[in-house]
Amino acid sequence: AARRGEMAAWARAVRGLLLDVSGVLYDSGGEGGGVPIAGSVEAVRRIKASGLKLRFCTNETQATREKFVKKLQGMGFDISVAEVTAPAPAACRILKERSLRPHLLVHNDLVPEFAEIDKANPNCVVVGDAAENFTYANLNEAFRVLIGMEKPVLISLGRGRYYKETDGLKLDVGAYMKALEYACDVQAEVVGKPAKMFFESALAEMGVPPQQAIMIGDDIVNDVGGAQLCGMRALQVRTGKYRPCDENHPHVKPDAYVNNLAEAVDIILQQL
Amino acid sequence: AARRGEMAAWARAVRGLLLDVSGVLYDSGGEGGGVPIAGSVEAVRRIKASGLKLRFCTNETQATREKFVKKLQGMGFDISVAEVTAPAPAACRILKERSLRPHLLVHNDLVPEFAEIDKANPNCVVVGDAAENFTYANLNEAFRVLIGMEKPVLISLGRGRYYKETDGLKLDVGAYMKALEYACDVQAEVVGKPAKMFFESALAEMGVPPQQAIMIGDDIVNDVGGAQLCGMRALQVRTGKYRPCDENHPHVKPDAYVNNLAEAVDIILQQL
Repeated sequence: AARRGEMAAWARAVRGLLLDVSGVLYDSGGEGGGVPIAGSVEAVRRIKASGLKLRFCTNETQATREKFVKKLQGMGFDISVAEVTAPAPAACRILKERSLRPHLLVHNDLVPEFAEIDKANPNCVVVGDAAENFTYANLNEAFRVLIGMEKPVLISLGRGRYYKETDGLKLDVGAYMKALEYACDVQAEVVGKPAKMFFESALAEMGVPPQQAIMIGDDIVNDVGGAQLCGMRALQVRTGKYRPCDENHPHVKPDAYVNNLAEAVDIILQQL
Repeated sequence: AARRGEMAAWARAVRGLLLDVSGVLYDSGGEGGGVPIAGSVEAVRRIKASGLKLRFCTNETQATREKFVKKLQGMGFDISVAEVTAPAPAACRILKERSLRPHLLVHNDLVPEFAEIDKANPNCVVVGDAAENFTYANLNEAFRVLIGMEKPVLISLGRGRYYKETDGLKLDVGAYMKALEYACDVQAEVVGKPAKMFFESALAEMGVPPQQAIMIGDDIVNDVGGAQLCGMRALQVRTGKYRPCDENHPHVKPDAYVNNLAEAVDIILQQL
């Protein structure tokens, strides 16, 4: 009740929601690629029925948006490719603008997102959540390409530390980004959450200003902290990679905690 | 001639030499584990004949000292296990002192160095240059052990960025240490170069004070910078992982550059 009271004032102004996907809609991994989090399928349906604008804002880079959306549809989610903001297309825009030819250290299933990009004679490295492609040999290869450049350019599709799959926690792209940064004494340019530009393009696609948008995510830094830096309110769900010690985070404090997406939607829709 | 002049003054006081091994004595990798760098076998022999104290100070953690020394002997080097200062025994001392039980992310050939250490129910992670053991699965496992601790303890056998093998540059333990540090928001305790305690124990084993010792290495930060912080003079060889841009390093400046170990020994022995 206290929580609902707190949120009432500002939740009333909301016109659009940004939802993180992994850890909010579903837990990834295992057979079929994951399982929906209880109440989330229905929660997405209720958001759409409410007339609120909705955008799925994900750092997942283990598949093309097409494949990713198909997986979620298979779990029962009402979602389409046009509703998804993801790092790979944002990276492609940057590569084209700056005539960069990437060496890709990414998941096999993400490669088609870069189909139109010239990859001959690379002058940068793009690292995504390559998962099983993070082999010792592939990491050494990306490192050698990078260290061989006069001025190394490293583009990272996110800076997440880890995520939760059905069989446990996994290191995310940020850890491998740090390994390459350190080895080459270079700072990566991060595309995806928590980059300001990434949230801003999601807001632009919705046509909603940050003051009227709420981000809902399980990652205290990349979802909550990133969205707040853009002027949005942000809720942390206690699902996915959420850990109780997140509630003592030294720098980031969510505008509210909710047990899961279903509860967040309950509270928000009651204010409208 | 200028270089010899520069070094003359302080090289005259020298009583002991510390030699880095990989990139100074030999280039590692390929058949037989590596090839000696031209003139280095003879240079070690000349140091021993001169009466100078000698200590091999290595961060290599891909093998036990026994196996490592055998490999070097096979290349013709006059070297024994008792002359080698290496990170694994230093780590074992720390583990015993603090009752730490390690989860090991190290090379298979290093495991025997930890034979006497209790590894059940781990309360810390020890990472070394695991090479082919740096698989996606092994990194995730070490990460899960670490993130599962109330206060994660990460001990790293060095903080090297990369090294050169006969088939090219390879990421060193420091890169993987950084990945785990970032994922778990923890700072590793580094055993091995450039840790002050590591150089100090090598000096103690020689019985030579830092002012009378010279470190010779190919790594601008871990060999040269580390030794200088202990009060030693340090030379950088232009072999191994040396790169011309090292000569513009923002923080570390060797007391002199030499083309290789043979040249360093030429100059030093002429001063005696």
